[in-house]
Amino acid sequence: MNNLPNCEHLILNEHNGVLDITLNRPDVRNAMNLALVTQLMEVFTAIESNTEIKAVVLKGANGNFCAGGDLKDMTNARKAHKTSNGDGKDPFYLLNREFGKMISQINAAPQVVITLLEGIVLGGGFGLACISDIAIADSDTQFGLPETSLGLPPAQIAPFVVQRIGLMQARRLMLTGSRFNGNEAKNLGVVHFVSNSTKEMLGILAQQIKQIQRCALHANRTTKRLMLAVGKVDNDTLLDNAADDFSSAIQSEEGIEGTNAFIEKRPAYWVR
Amino acid sequence: MNNLPNCEHLILNEHNGVLDITLNRPDVRNAMNLALVTQLMEVFTAIESNTEIKAVVLKGANGNFCAGGDLKDMTNARKAHKTSNGDGKDPFYLLNREFGKMISQINAAPQVVITLLEGIVLGGGFGLACISDIAIADSDTQFGLPETSLGLPPAQIAPFVVQRIGLMQARRLMLTGSRFNGNEAKNLGVVHFVSNSTKEMLGILAQQIKQIQRCALHANRTTKRLMLAVGKVDNDTLLDNAADDFSSAIQSEEGIEGTNAFIEKRPAYWVR
Amino acid sequence: MNNLPNCEHLILNEHNGVLDITLNRPDVRNAMNLALVTQLMEVFTAIESNTEIKAVVLKGANGNFCAGGDLKDMTNARKAHKTSNGDGKDPFYLLNREFGKMISQINAAPQVVITLLEGIVLGGGFGLACISDIAIADSDTQFGLPETSLGLPPAQIAPFVVQRIGLMQARRLMLTGSRFNGNEAKNLGVVHFVSNSTKEMLGILAQQIKQIQRCALHANRTTKRLMLAVGKVDNDTLLDNAADDFSSAIQSEEGIEGTNAFIEKRPAYWVR
Repeated sequence: MNNLPNCEHLILNEHNGVLDITLNRPDVRNAMNLALVTQLMEVFTAIESNTEIKAVVLKGANGNFCAGGDLKDMTNARKAHKTSNGDGKDPFYLLNREFGKMISQINAAPQVVITLLEGIVLGGGFGLACISDIAIADSDTQFGLPETSLGLPPAQIAPFVVQRIGLMQARRLMLTGSRFNGNEAKNLGVVHFVSNSTKEMLGILAQQIKQIQRCALHANRTTKRLMLAVGKVDNDTLLDNAADDFSSAIQSEEGIEGTNAFIEKRPAYWVR
Repeated sequence: MNNLPNCEHLILNEHNGVLDITLNRPDVRNAMNLALVTQLMEVFTAIESNTEIKAVVLKGANGNFCAGGDLKDMTNARKAHKTSNGDGKDPFYLLNREFGKMISQINAAPQVVITLLEGIVLGGGFGLACISDIAIADSDTQFGLPETSLGLPPAQIAPFVVQRIGLMQARRLMLTGSRFNGNEAKNLGVVHFVSNSTKEMLGILAQQIKQIQRCALHANRTTKRLMLAVGKVDNDTLLDNAADDFSSAIQSEEGIEGTNAFIEKRPAYWVR
Repeated sequence: MNNLPNCEHLILNEHNGVLDITLNRPDVRNAMNLALVTQLMEVFTAIESNTEIKAVVLKGANGNFCAGGDLKDMTNARKAHKTSNGDGKDPFYLLNREFGKMISQINAAPQVVITLLEGIVLGGGFGLACISDIAIADSDTQFGLPETSLGLPPAQIAPFVVQRIGLMQARRLMLTGSRFNGNEAKNLGVVHFVSNSTKEMLGILAQQIKQIQRCALHANRTTKRLMLAVGKVDNDTLLDNAADDFSSAIQSEEGIEGTNAFIEKRPAYWVR
């Protein structure tokens, strides 16, 4: 794929319909500054309509997933004068809101988004874990929501945490600034799989990608869009739209191939 | 009960306030064609106002619950010309949407709906599991959402799956076309109970029906309606309406009997 | 704190930024009559703007948390004539609705609300458990929703139960009038911690309060408000508001102290 943006803080690697994105600021445990946040959005915008990439794997360089937002950005924002844009919003607002736009965009990405959660997964990094379609953690990965202990609300990630694990667990975790490991993250419903070694993690990843390759690209894109609409429109409207989607799918090349392959007991053309 | 419809693809059996409905197309593992879907709706419509039936038990003939939608219906729909109804909707749309109407109706049925999940529980069959008030599965029951591997979205069941097990697990299961057994279904929050034999399954069923018989019919109907309204209207309105329901209930014959029985430490008249 | 109301049915005790509230009607296992409900609301109103109280611990006198609503109040309401207020609402409506107002208020209390769930936790008492930020139960605590077996809907608590444990478990528990112990309550997602003795329960409590003391008061208040808004406004609006909250927080004395303390690797001034 040629139209991927050039990203200072990300390592991109495409293979067999999968795009690997590595957060690459290892000296600060891949803390996300505004540049990295912007680059993530650029990459997901660039692949939005790409029908070759079925899955995106998000990971961190050098054994840590992500330490959260970069506090140095905050220091820089403190130095900046108040901006005079239309909303009169200050640099802290803008910095924080950009992060929320990034996480909203990745949540709704049409690809299957997989996170590999090693080392440190804090604050905004935890937010990324909460919007991945498949999350795989090491048993000794350290998860946490330290914001309130720093005098700050976990502002842009709060809704995604609540949607991921429910209000019941979210209220305890956030109001106590809790830390927990990969096994507890699985019990809480943050992650789907726990591994005990990098080798095991990569084995689970390979297995999941193999499963995704069996699913049709457009069917998956439609299904993800449908799921994310649940609770946002009333059920009857949702089901009306879903029936339209179903009708389009079954009359498409993909749907004809998939149902024929099923009846003929052979793999569909998209199975790798 | 005399006014139950005559159903080609269903076996109906009423006893002690419980209606058993057996999906009866064993040669296709009880796959649901349009006729079966229509018959299910007719039965639930017929018992809607019946105040003798407290519970409905849904199961499948010959050891399988349900293999999902019948692909032969799709083939027939392919042959049909586009219909010229008001909406200009084609046969695929109409077929799919009818299934969603059926599942919505059973979800909101005033009775306690119990599913006995044996053998195969796929696609639309999985959707039925997801809207039952009490779901009992064998440990080796095979659950799955194969739609996306056939090039199709699990259109009419997606919202019910998300509401059942949460977005976190739904997105993984659907986007990987996952298969899993009864124990995993319990871990995921699809089913309430897992049995290791038909005898054990029937024991759990008998125990649950006994529990239901201790609950008052109108109180259960009101409670189910209240629960299904959560998230659809704002909480204050919901609580206002709930207080009206409470006031009506406690002044009804049922509420007077129930509270008196409690104070007098005797079973209420409805306890079988 | 001097402005706490004088409450016949509650024992209040403030220490180190924590307010203990003990439901004190041990002869009826702390069943809640209208007077107790009103007193709870008065206390939470009195501390609403208090910025010294970070946490509230709710418990019951003499080894039981709470047996639910007091049926004697119902008997009194039966004797009362229909009121002729504007809404034409009867005493049953008003009694029930007041309970819902109390539970809504405590759910949204800006403090971290902790419940210590010993002995009996039934009906309305179960409702209180369902809105606590941290719930700790003994393994042999008896939980239950007996309403429907009394011919009544669990009217004011139904939405809070659904929001706590999801529709899937709520529909089974309520429609069968189920009883369960502390371990099952943890599996269901009602409580966060299970203890095997009073000593262990108090140990968990002390640990959680220590964690809360590490979090900043205003950050926690803001975070709780944000979490409770999830699903009530659309995500983009929520994130816009959250960015405003973040900007205010990081420019506040608390946010400046918290981030400086983090950078300087020392405890913030609020850590006890």
